[in-house]
Amino acid sequence: MSEISTQFEALNLNELEPLARGKLTQSAYDYYSSGAADEITVRRNQAAFSEISLRPRMLVDISNLQTSVSLFGQLVSMPILVAPMAFQAMAHAQGELATARAAAAANTVMICSTLSNYSIEEIAAVANGNLWFQLYVYKGREITRSLVRRAEAAGYKALVVTVDSPLLGRRERDVRNRFQLPKELRIANFEGEETLGQFPLNVRESGLHAYIAELYDRALTWKDLEWMVSITKLPVLVKGILRGDDAVRAIECGARGIIVSNHGGRQLDTAIATIEALPEVVEAAGAKAEILMDGGVRRGTDVLKALALGAKAVLLGRPILWGLAIAGPQGPAHVLQMLRGEFELAMALSGCPTLQSISDDLLVRK
Amino acid sequence: MSEISTQFEALNLNELEPLARGKLTQSAYDYYSSGAADEITVRRNQAAFSEISLRPRMLVDISNLQTSVSLFGQLVSMPILVAPMAFQAMAHAQGELATARAAAAANTVMICSTLSNYSIEEIAAVANGNLWFQLYVYKGREITRSLVRRAEAAGYKALVVTVDSPLLGRRERDVRNRFQLPKELRIANFEGEETLGQFPLNVRESGLHAYIAELYDRALTWKDLEWMVSITKLPVLVKGILRGDDAVRAIECGARGIIVSNHGGRQLDTAIATIEALPEVVEAAGAKAEILMDGGVRRGTDVLKALALGAKAVLLGRPILWGLAIAGPQGPAHVLQMLRGEFELAMALSGCPTLQSISDDLLVRK
Amino acid sequence: MSEISTQFEALNLNELEPLARGKLTQSAYDYYSSGAADEITVRRNQAAFSEISLRPRMLVDISNLQTSVSLFGQLVSMPILVAPMAFQAMAHAQGELATARAAAAANTVMICSTLSNYSIEEIAAVANGNLWFQLYVYKGREITRSLVRRAEAAGYKALVVTVDSPLLGRRERDVRNRFQLPKELRIANFEGEETLGQFPLNVRESGLHAYIAELYDRALTWKDLEWMVSITKLPVLVKGILRGDDAVRAIECGARGIIVSNHGGRQLDTAIATIEALPEVVEAAGAKAEILMDGGVRRGTDVLKALALGAKAVLLGRPILWGLAIAGPQGPAHVLQMLRGEFELAMALSGCPTLQSISDDLLVRK
Amino acid sequence: MSEISTQFEALNLNELEPLARGKLTQSAYDYYSSGAADEITVRRNQAAFSEISLRPRMLVDISNLQTSVSLFGQLVSMPILVAPMAFQAMAHAQGELATARAAAAANTVMICSTLSNYSIEEIAAVANGNLWFQLYVYKGREITRSLVRRAEAAGYKALVVTVDSPLLGRRERDVRNRFQLPKELRIANFEGEETLGQFPLNVRESGLHAYIAELYDRALTWKDLEWMVSITKLPVLVKGILRGDDAVRAIECGARGIIVSNHGGRQLDTAIATIEALPEVVEAAGAKAEILMDGGVRRGTDVLKALALGAKAVLLGRPILWGLAIAGPQGPAHVLQMLRGEFELAMALSGCPTLQSISDDLLVRK
Repeated sequence: MSEISTQFEALNLNELEPLARGKLTQSAYDYYSSGAADEITVRRNQAAFSEISLRPRMLVDISNLQTSVSLFGQLVSMPILVAPMAFQAMAHAQGELATARAAAAANTVMICSTLSNYSIEEIAAVANGNLWFQLYVYKGREITRSLVRRAEAAGYKALVVTVDSPLLGRRERDVRNRFQLPKELRIANFEGEETLGQFPLNVRESGLHAYIAELYDRALTWKDLEWMVSITKLPVLVKGILRGDDAVRAIECGARGIIVSNHGGRQLDTAIATIEALPEVVEAAGAKAEILMDGGVRRGTDVLKALALGAKAVLLGRPILWGLAIAGPQGPAHVLQMLRGEFELAMALSGCPTLQSISDDLLVRK
Repeated sequence: MSEISTQFEALNLNELEPLARGKLTQSAYDYYSSGAADEITVRRNQAAFSEISLRPRMLVDISNLQTSVSLFGQLVSMPILVAPMAFQAMAHAQGELATARAAAAANTVMICSTLSNYSIEEIAAVANGNLWFQLYVYKGREITRSLVRRAEAAGYKALVVTVDSPLLGRRERDVRNRFQLPKELRIANFEGEETLGQFPLNVRESGLHAYIAELYDRALTWKDLEWMVSITKLPVLVKGILRGDDAVRAIECGARGIIVSNHGGRQLDTAIATIEALPEVVEAAGAKAEILMDGGVRRGTDVLKALALGAKAVLLGRPILWGLAIAGPQGPAHVLQMLRGEFELAMALSGCPTLQSISDDLLVRK
Repeated sequence: MSEISTQFEALNLNELEPLARGKLTQSAYDYYSSGAADEITVRRNQAAFSEISLRPRMLVDISNLQTSVSLFGQLVSMPILVAPMAFQAMAHAQGELATARAAAAANTVMICSTLSNYSIEEIAAVANGNLWFQLYVYKGREITRSLVRRAEAAGYKALVVTVDSPLLGRRERDVRNRFQLPKELRIANFEGEETLGQFPLNVRESGLHAYIAELYDRALTWKDLEWMVSITKLPVLVKGILRGDDAVRAIECGARGIIVSNHGGRQLDTAIATIEALPEVVEAAGAKAEILMDGGVRRGTDVLKALALGAKAVLLGRPILWGLAIAGPQGPAHVLQMLRGEFELAMALSGCPTLQSISDDLLVRK
Repeated sequence: MSEISTQFEALNLNELEPLARGKLTQSAYDYYSSGAADEITVRRNQAAFSEISLRPRMLVDISNLQTSVSLFGQLVSMPILVAPMAFQAMAHAQGELATARAAAAANTVMICSTLSNYSIEEIAAVANGNLWFQLYVYKGREITRSLVRRAEAAGYKALVVTVDSPLLGRRERDVRNRFQLPKELRIANFEGEETLGQFPLNVRESGLHAYIAELYDRALTWKDLEWMVSITKLPVLVKGILRGDDAVRAIECGARGIIVSNHGGRQLDTAIATIEALPEVVEAAGAKAEILMDGGVRRGTDVLKALALGAKAVLLGRPILWGLAIAGPQGPAHVLQMLRGEFELAMALSGCPTLQSISDDLLVRK
């Protein structure tokens, strides 16, 4: 069993954020940490985990814990993946490269954002093939097709289509900061392209908001998802689903995975917490697709609860960036190790030696 | 789709109030902001919106949002109207004139209070016919009849009869301030009339309280509503309903619209939040009348939730006054534009391209 | 309709307590305000009222409110009585005499505590016959019989037997203060009697606690209640009931009234709030006895809610003492007038012109 | 009836902790007081008691309270036992000896931890036979067998097998302090044994964590429980059960008692509060075994509630240590006396003269 990493002054993932804040510009910290509007969903994602109580089982032999999980034929060492997050080089110059190396070392998957500071190919070069590619859908199918082809060519093993962002949520801290990407950083996948490769300048609000308002496809529908499935042999996951009926529809369009997500509370404020939405999605679609979730995962017991409610794995987001900001290239690996250790301890103390033994019978909800 | 206005330092409607407070006398601020007794209902109106979670739909084409709504044959550009509010010239000398111009510019309806600082006719002169008239019922039918005739003559398109105020609620901040209208301001609709045209002086409590205690008709019943319907061809809405049975009764008396309202928490403290009362009223009377609501609307998602629960439109109150106090005649238009932008974003991120597509299937209530 | 009194700087009953605190010794303030243990029930009594929402009725003629109520053949002007409270002369030298005069002036009932600083006869001399007598049951029936005879002779119209205090609750503030009656004050009903007439001295805890531990009858049962009913022709009310089955038993023993009470949170901490216990008692016994309640009543809407749940009247406690401390002999009358005014306003704004029209259809409980 | 002890400046058990904190090293205080991770379960154990309301019965003769209870043929004076707690000599040099003397004086049971600073035999020498022995199960059956034999030989009357700790919970305060046993203290039951007798030194985390990670048996199962039952004639209780099915299983393996416990919130954070888990265990197994509970008991009403939900007795933990730290060898007796007094008062004010009369009919849960 893994020890919980003690490489940080922080003893758990919650303690990372205040430390990271001191290492980041206000603008970068706000971009990473903020959510939409009153940030009710940001807080709710975490609080909803705390409101679930555990009923552990005793006297189960937990001397040999099994945590590896197979996703679309790819074996990963634990049900904790790295969520797609944009612009990681604001946290450290190595950015996505460091995160990819950490995921590879942990033998888990990193999902790379379309909006990365290193390109699809640069990241693939360091990551030993445990990458998935997250796709924002731009107006014009050629941009999408090109990104898919590049990801396939670089050896990415799945596509994650984000469907909750036809427009950017109103992140007021970014508006106040008139958020712009630092000058030295690139939207690497579109480097050199005039419109796609940089935020509009001289806008009164968030530059990212303006970029997305101009470029993303607001007319996206299920037919477009069908088309995306049709142009690749990679498994397609749909990220941003919060309803059972939408999950069923996604699968009918050919998706093989669903990521229950509210974009970390960054899109529609007062959206349901993901751990609250998960059971409905699992019930509707759990038999036909892999169900993953993200949002608010900070403790090993959170991972356990998500799995008990039917998730195959969870994605870890912001804490990875905090690790990067605090400890540089070593940070993300420490963060993954902290959560892995906590998760294994939660399994042990709940009497769950395998992932299969984690059932909703362990939970009491108020 | 509309941008959210950034004319203010405030980034949302909640941030307006503290800014406005610095621009107003204590007495005017307290009059506008306060509620009855412990102000439990004031706070509950807003909190009740936050307790409703959203289950957004994905992959709906939202490139072309439709927000206009027809009310009694009048097409308004969005389901957000201006609530009746008294004495707007305490916020800015242009008072109701500025608000009326803003509503007209936004192609929505302003509901003018009986207790305005500009007269029925003065407001009508600037507002292009998108006005409704809010009626307090005084003792003596001739006063009422006269107000109705003047509103009709000035081109107002509906009458809103407020039924929750046979007496004024106990607004303790007004009592403490011994609230009086500033000397330079008039009760414009009764200018020059000795009793009707001014508050009683030398009272130990709120002057408005004394005015209403002396003049309003405490014996008002459903028969009086029937009579009011009988004397006008304008559609009559009843404002201040919080029960399904009362809504049915109002319609039986000839009302064509119901405004679910607790007077912004200013009348009966611990009255039910309006968003909590709305479903009962819609179920009882939604098929037979237009149901509107006010109380606590501050976010685009609040509008979405009210519509999902069956409201045809919402009324926006205090934030309009805060805009007037902060930015003068331009303020109300900015406020309307902020909320319109947020509402459209909420539609987009919820997968609702039309008002008709907003259903209670979007909501989870705890 | 009554105006809400504005004789105080305080605008409502909640604002009285901090003002009174400045007028009282720490020991007296703590004795009056404190409750048992963690004071959870003290707070819960009030909070439970706030958690009930009102669904007011509109367009009811409220120009002529009826608030008088008949209790055991005695007509009182409003459903608000004065609760029994010990040692009122700690608040003002006139003590119970002032309170009795205020109750008489308001044409309501004062319930006099056994543990008063003026005697049964002294209070009766100023109160015009609107008095009930509250009885603590001492060891030895002769003490009880004597008190009953004196109350009868002095014209008291009902007996209130407190049954929740076979021992005193653990009021930790009194323990810390080693609470003793100020030297100049008497336990007037036992003046001159060595044991009954004073607290034990030199005890390490609350003197009242020691007094009661020594003198009250811990072996009291329903048979004793039967006996008390048998020795008087006055109606007997039982105070301190929190269960329907106990209420039924009391009536079987001859009681004609039940006072739902947890002794203002001063006896058993974490006891149920009285407004929460009331419906069970009304359902079990409301048809056979008058049900009253006390505990946490601070607002006119609280009175309305208690009546809506079946109480015939409420008792007002601590705020009377705060009034006495702040304004001397005039204080209790002002306090009664404040609450009467608020209650009438609550009736008016809820559409209830009579006490009979106040039903539980007005309420929503979470 | 017992008086509540006033030997302390503290008036109740909650007030002990801050006083004790001033007497202890940070490391010892943190070890005693802390829980796992965010300490949600630590707080929840106590809060869950407060959320249960009491419906007391009146007019029951409570002049002669019966509080003694028979456990496995041993009569104890009250349903309050001393929970097993490790390393009590950090609080006072007399440590477990003082606690054992206090339990003996109170005629109740002390459960001695395997990890004590005085040995099985030393404690037995001062305790008059009212001891049970708590057993941690080490790798290698001989260690266990030896401990059992020693406890039997020393006259301990029951064995308490702790099953919730195959690994130590993550107590972050101990990690931060790199918790080690003070140099002058011994793991007395293994004195002189190199591995068993001391914590590993030079570890980066809690020394106790490392000790347990190395020595405890993570492969423990129900078969091992059967074996333990088979090697002794003493009654065996299983401590750390939070589920009905586990309780049934334990009894099938020969256990005669169940202690519903989450280890004071020190093992699996967000585990269900014990008072919330108790009813399920009582329902499943109450007829076949003695059910005890610990966790969060601080008030006499807490004991009453646990008994009302079917516990035969409760265990008191941390407050005993606070008493030891504050008042030395006299402390534990005072603490037991405080809680006994409060419990008897709770019985009296609830109308429960005997333990048998305490039923769940007294409770209302939200």
